[in-house]
Amino acid sequence: MHDKFSEYLNGQLHNSAWAFFLGPFVQELLSHVTNEEMRGLARSAGIRAGREMPLPACESLQQMEAAANDHWSRLGWGIVTFQEYSGHLSIEHRFAPLRATLGEPAMAWAAGFLEGVYQEWFTMLGAGRDLLVRQEGGTDSYGGLVYRLAR
Amino acid sequence: MHDKFSEYLNGQLHNSAWAFFLGPFVQELLSHVTNEEMRGLARSAGIRAGREMPLPACESLQQMEAAANDHWSRLGWGIVTFQEYSGHLSIEHRFAPLRATLGEPAMAWAAGFLEGVYQEWFTMLGAGRDLLVRQEGGTDSYGGLVYRLAR
Amino acid sequence: MHDKFSEYLNGQLHNSAWAFFLGPFVQELLSHVTNEEMRGLARSAGIRAGREMPLPACESLQQMEAAANDHWSRLGWGIVTFQEYSGHLSIEHRFAPLRATLGEPAMAWAAGFLEGVYQEWFTMLGAGRDLLVRQEGGTDSYGGLVYRLAR
Amino acid sequence: MHDKFSEYLNGQLHNSAWAFFLGPFVQELLSHVTNEEMRGLARSAGIRAGREMPLPACESLQQMEAAANDHWSRLGWGIVTFQEYSGHLSIEHRFAPLRATLGEPAMAWAAGFLEGVYQEWFTMLGAGRDLLVRQEGGTDSYGGLVYRLAR
Repeated sequence: MHDKFSEYLNGQLHNSAWAFFLGPFVQELLSHVTNEEMRGLARSAGIRAGREMPLPACESLQQMEAAANDHWSRLGWGIVTFQEYSGHLSIEHRFAPLRATLGEPAMAWAAGFLEGVYQEWFTMLGAGRDLLVRQEGGTDSYGGLVYRLAR
Repeated sequence: MHDKFSEYLNGQLHNSAWAFFLGPFVQELLSHVTNEEMRGLARSAGIRAGREMPLPACESLQQMEAAANDHWSRLGWGIVTFQEYSGHLSIEHRFAPLRATLGEPAMAWAAGFLEGVYQEWFTMLGAGRDLLVRQEGGTDSYGGLVYRLAR
Repeated sequence: MHDKFSEYLNGQLHNSAWAFFLGPFVQELLSHVTNEEMRGLARSAGIRAGREMPLPACESLQQMEAAANDHWSRLGWGIVTFQEYSGHLSIEHRFAPLRATLGEPAMAWAAGFLEGVYQEWFTMLGAGRDLLVRQEGGTDSYGGLVYRLAR
Repeated sequence: MHDKFSEYLNGQLHNSAWAFFLGPFVQELLSHVTNEEMRGLARSAGIRAGREMPLPACESLQQMEAAANDHWSRLGWGIVTFQEYSGHLSIEHRFAPLRATLGEPAMAWAAGFLEGVYQEWFTMLGAGRDLLVRQEGGTDSYGGLVYRLAR
């Protein structure tokens, strides 16, 4: 999507009330733990979040995408696209409010949160324990996040 | 203020998008640190927040209250009342979004955040280092927080 | 309620996106119709709104107040208190978003909207056709509106 | 832009508090005036809105587009693209909150509002009186609006 739109849309996602709390709280945490540990915390938090807001039983990947997007739409958490490739599944999530409120540098760890949510959803719906959701590349210029589910 | 109003107003402060992230993230943190440590983190975060959003020079307590409320109003963080007593100053903060989004139990540690903000503001405006902001009692039924500045 | 709180809470109700449209649209309408005609339009609109968002069957005035407040709370439209007096019923509505976004002068006509909503609700729940909801006095300093249901 | 994104983004623009007032108020107005008259009212309101929120002096169409988007971004009113063709200028506005809150049928008249805003901005910045902003086609599936400035 064209940068002008993405920039606008991400700007609208900034929540100044929560940035006021989260910015300093995250800085404080990062004076005690490493970025990698924060990412681990975020991933574990995402697994909890996925469990607390489960997907209903789904019979296809399309149904699963629609069910996920029902949750995301209700929460204002953006939109996801699942795509099958030989050997892996790609998960592309756009317009999560994380980057706009936490800031770009925070994405190094905050991307772990959605990684955990998708991990839990795929595990709960029967993906084998050896299938892992992992981020692919960094956050792109508009804050979109790409994960892949693979062995 | 009458409970019916407070209940309504607090309900309006709930942010479901950020509760989705913060609820599980806080649960995850609390599986690693104690409530007391979390409160310390929140207080330190509040000190950072107060430094990043300082009050202008003020010539009276009234001016300071007005300057604080300008910040709170812009952010949607509620409203504060300062009141002088012999031997201490009372700080009463209402309608912070913390309880509505983080939940009642979180107030045991989250109240430390505003404690830190007020500590930093009073220190920056010249309160002696031996004057400490400390919470007085718990959160009341409507989520209001009372602190006192005293030796 | 103390003015400081009411002022703060009303400030938070201002919606700049809709004020941008509604301010000029209302000015334009008022260059064609009188304030009294606008009030009539607003009252008729309120009757439509009450019909589209009806109250469930209620067995008492208390139940009716609770049902009304469920609607208002979900919409962020404030809070109502019903009170019985000999000869009339008082309806006090606080924290409607009308004044904060439309401005104080608009209340001369916009108060007709809630008058219509309550008229329709009382009529639908069996109040006789000779019972009319009418505003009592103007908007008070914090934007609260008082109506009475009486013959 | 892909329909899935547009649908999501438009859904997020729905404001239920203002839809509650505006839906019935517009229905009431349309029981008194024609769609064409409403469109005229909306266009005149847009001219007022453009005058109340003017653009600064601009030296190029690009500057003008940037200045317009500064206003729209601050208000959460979407994003505009100006494009020059031989004989006319195209104005494409996306993500205005009108359709999401007023509903699709209302666009027959509500599109007049932005027509008026752009008319006023171009006139104020020196476009000749014979240059008119007029809508081109209807609202597209995602609520985008296209106008052209031409003789």
